[in-house]
Amino acid sequence: MRPTIEWTDGKVVMIDQRKLPLEEVYTECRSAEDVARAIETMVIRGAPAIGVAAAYGVALGVINVAPGEDLEREFDRVIQRLAGTRPTARNLFWALERMTGVFRENRLLPCGALGLRLLREAQSIETEDLETNRQIGASGKDLIEDGDSVLTHCNAGGLATAGYGTAIGIIRAAFEEGKKIHVFVDETRPLLQGARLTAWELDKLGIPMTLISDNMAGWLMKSGEIRRVVTGADRIARNGDAANKIGTYSLAVLARHHGLPFYVAAPLNTFDFGLRTGAEIPIEERPADEVRRAGSCPITLPDVPVRNPAFDVVPAKLITAIVSEKGIARPPYGKNLKPWRGNRTG
Amino acid sequence: MRPTIEWTDGKVVMIDQRKLPLEEVYTECRSAEDVARAIETMVIRGAPAIGVAAAYGVALGVINVAPGEDLEREFDRVIQRLAGTRPTARNLFWALERMTGVFRENRLLPCGALGLRLLREAQSIETEDLETNRQIGASGKDLIEDGDSVLTHCNAGGLATAGYGTAIGIIRAAFEEGKKIHVFVDETRPLLQGARLTAWELDKLGIPMTLISDNMAGWLMKSGEIRRVVTGADRIARNGDAANKIGTYSLAVLARHHGLPFYVAAPLNTFDFGLRTGAEIPIEERPADEVRRAGSCPITLPDVPVRNPAFDVVPAKLITAIVSEKGIARPPYGKNLKPWRGNRTG
Repeated sequence: MRPTIEWTDGKVVMIDQRKLPLEEVYTECRSAEDVARAIETMVIRGAPAIGVAAAYGVALGVINVAPGEDLEREFDRVIQRLAGTRPTARNLFWALERMTGVFRENRLLPCGALGLRLLREAQSIETEDLETNRQIGASGKDLIEDGDSVLTHCNAGGLATAGYGTAIGIIRAAFEEGKKIHVFVDETRPLLQGARLTAWELDKLGIPMTLISDNMAGWLMKSGEIRRVVTGADRIARNGDAANKIGTYSLAVLARHHGLPFYVAAPLNTFDFGLRTGAEIPIEERPADEVRRAGSCPITLPDVPVRNPAFDVVPAKLITAIVSEKGIARPPYGKNLKPWRGNRTG
Repeated sequence: MRPTIEWTDGKVVMIDQRKLPLEEVYTECRSAEDVARAIETMVIRGAPAIGVAAAYGVALGVINVAPGEDLEREFDRVIQRLAGTRPTARNLFWALERMTGVFRENRLLPCGALGLRLLREAQSIETEDLETNRQIGASGKDLIEDGDSVLTHCNAGGLATAGYGTAIGIIRAAFEEGKKIHVFVDETRPLLQGARLTAWELDKLGIPMTLISDNMAGWLMKSGEIRRVVTGADRIARNGDAANKIGTYSLAVLARHHGLPFYVAAPLNTFDFGLRTGAEIPIEERPADEVRRAGSCPITLPDVPVRNPAFDVVPAKLITAIVSEKGIARPPYGKNLKPWRGNRTG
């Protein structure tokens, strides 16, 4: 399996995550615009992977600046374009800020050298993300017990990152230690990232799993079949409130009702310490047709009114622990996340 | 629109609920076996509608007994076949018991007359169900306030019954009184009865609605957009525990967490007063491919392991009120459902 995203021969190659697992197709991006469209249409998704893609998009934007064009203006345009693709994941803005810093520092380099410098930075972001995920796995693996059954939602695996995964990284690290683990996979409507991506990844890793419809999770918690929940995050406020794929909030409420632990796994660049609470996190509303269809099939009347919030916010009080590359934080998060602020990479 | 199910020209005609709303196709059943298959494959579904269909199945079974065949043995075979189709809905067994009673009472009639007598009984069950639904609507309509927004799950509408609906019946009765109502419709994976059937019915009735994925309900409760929940039921134990479509349990937990009312609507023939609690209700596990597909589209790996419980049980303590044709019952149900025991029809 090729990586989720990689730089090859002057272009960014991504596995098209809309088509998995039925087709394994790769998309080539040769410009910042190509990357922006790939993020918008969810060819690539998952907060850390979006950050990596955006960084490559910035590099491509500068590499493609034509002689005589206004570099500053073109750079700002590229940043604006990429920043406008998806509003919720913090990693996107983090990556754009980091790339902007490198651009400013190296502004006096010849244009070609500047492009290469930005490309190197994007590659560093990718490499660091993979390493970060392994650290998240190592930090969190003791939260999973031998014989455990763990529910995960959406895809916080290798496909959502430069590789290895955040929530799946923890499960995987525990599994690689020899623990017997069973994973329940929420299919995750409307775009079915659980059924399509997480099931595909766990199958390749040989980790035993059961796929369920999202609305079965509560009942399987009640029956004792699900014993804890681990998800990723798209943005975490400084009080510990965590935005993640729609449906995560319901799982956190259900876990609390059944007395089960609910864990969130994310790299530090998912944290937005500038936000006091999750109420300040913008929630993307996506196209109605995503709900009106499943896979490529229409499932309802063509014009039925729809709500399609792509994310929700889990209040900190429902989160048992947050795992990052720095370790495990527990409530009260306002106090216990503070030491991670200084450690922020980038 | 033709009724959900009707007797015409010596056969039972049902709208094929697997194909709605994309196709409006009618299936003809000419034998008890045809009816049994229609119930198993969910051409017809919804506890009250299954009861009506089973009653017609029994009548067809007796009408089709060949001269010289052992009537008693054939009757028992038909009852066994129909009883084995789906285990959870009480109405199926209630209808078979009622038809068996009529068979025993009229055992000495000539075979043709006995068949007609059973057919008349099935038609009565159908007519009574429609009337019962209107009474449920009248009983429950005051639970819905002007300007309310109500979530419903699966389909407890005209298609789940002989007509009018139970949960949808309440919404409809309130709407017909002139109340401004907005309905949130859970799509209801895996078979999408909400997206396919409830959306189709509400559209025909002109009741404003918004379709959502099941995993959005909790977040819309938190945001204040959903203000109460009304569902049907497939079987209710004498302590008030209520089995209904998978996902209903999660909604009841979420409603309680947000301080929202959670109502169950069902006719008396859905009650199983012989059961002390919901723990005794058998929960059907349906084929894995229902979860592996959505509509006609495969959505995951072909062999991924799946759980597919078709129902769950809402504990009585999470139910704000139960509505039947006899009125509204509130906790404690052990005491407050007692007056309904004697009133059981059939």
